[in-house]
Amino acid sequence: MKFYQKEIQLSQKQRGFHLVTSEIVLSIKEISDIDIGVLHVFIKHTSASLAINENADFTVREDFEAHINEMVPEDMPYYKHNYEGSDDMPAHIKAALFGSSIQIPVSNGKLNLGTWQGIYLGEHRDFGGMRKIVITLIGN
Amino acid sequence: MKFYQKEIQLSQKQRGFHLVTSEIVLSIKEISDIDIGVLHVFIKHTSASLAINENADFTVREDFEAHINEMVPEDMPYYKHNYEGSDDMPAHIKAALFGSSIQIPVSNGKLNLGTWQGIYLGEHRDFGGMRKIVITLIGN
Amino acid sequence: MKFYQKEIQLSQKQRGFHLVTSEIVLSIKEISDIDIGVLHVFIKHTSASLAINENADFTVREDFEAHINEMVPEDMPYYKHNYEGSDDMPAHIKAALFGSSIQIPVSNGKLNLGTWQGIYLGEHRDFGGMRKIVITLIGN
Repeated sequence: MKFYQKEIQLSQKQRGFHLVTSEIVLSIKEISDIDIGVLHVFIKHTSASLAINENADFTVREDFEAHINEMVPEDMPYYKHNYEGSDDMPAHIKAALFGSSIQIPVSNGKLNLGTWQGIYLGEHRDFGGMRKIVITLIGN
Repeated sequence: MKFYQKEIQLSQKQRGFHLVTSEIVLSIKEISDIDIGVLHVFIKHTSASLAINENADFTVREDFEAHINEMVPEDMPYYKHNYEGSDDMPAHIKAALFGSSIQIPVSNGKLNLGTWQGIYLGEHRDFGGMRKIVITLIGN
Repeated sequence: MKFYQKEIQLSQKQRGFHLVTSEIVLSIKEISDIDIGVLHVFIKHTSASLAINENADFTVREDFEAHINEMVPEDMPYYKHNYEGSDDMPAHIKAALFGSSIQIPVSNGKLNLGTWQGIYLGEHRDFGGMRKIVITLIGN
């Protein structure tokens, strides 16, 4: 029975969706000790999100950004929380829709992802800065 | 290696988003025994949700409610499941979009949340009643 | 302390939302050995999703499909990733919104679901084929 936990900072990203699989995997080398387990990744912010999606074509990530901006637009007349900028309130809603954490099975010392899966950081602020994440690995 | 589990009822809330961090934390005092772990919270309903977002300004929660009502409106002409009231079918969809569970890392006996993060109950029915949640704590 | 993990293929489904609770529960009989734990289910694809919602009336699942097609339409003029068919890019976005994994508490050898809760597969492609999922059970 093994538990590992690490808090890291992701490099600063511009607004949009970004593949961060290697930034995360490289920081948790202890994964090679785990036969069966789960990797849990949590983002400590309310205006950025984690998700799992297509890892190959970068236009998928551009289309995510284009469409989520339609689904959760800026400057809606009913927004009351608007004193931190037009990008702020939509960022909170987007973060909750995609979610603050992901869980990935670990099998034979590796993340058991599908061929086309990667980890997305959704940076929903215009200038979000470096984002802190907590990585917890539970397995045997 | 420690496992704790508890089923509790949240106090009744009106439709909208509500901070329930303390209701949850107070019910799981065993968290202080955990060095490294994960807290898993699950809601046993299909018309209410759990999410993590901004814990300070209550207008953020009001804006969540205003916007999700635009994204998932009542009385869409294509809804077939409409015999439990106008608020019912949208409540199911909202619940699945935000999700039925949250996972939060535990570090040194405490939830390892970011400064501005709290736990939201999304009450998506007009009269949802008391909501049951199951809290599971895994750690060492 | 017990860990079980199994990779299975779900039978092929048509586009829409499908109840897969029994397909999953039948494949993990070891659950009866667990007093307290969590079942983690992960889908190894980027155009299908897992969620938890209403297990009784099939029109709920039809309304999910009708409404998500409104929220994430095909053929939006700003989609750049369009060479795999009109259903492809929306499928990626839907998959990330509902999510790639679910977590359900295990209590006394059984899934601790609410009365009306079941596990949904969201098949977001027109012809998605068989979908692989990884089931991980952690408990004591």
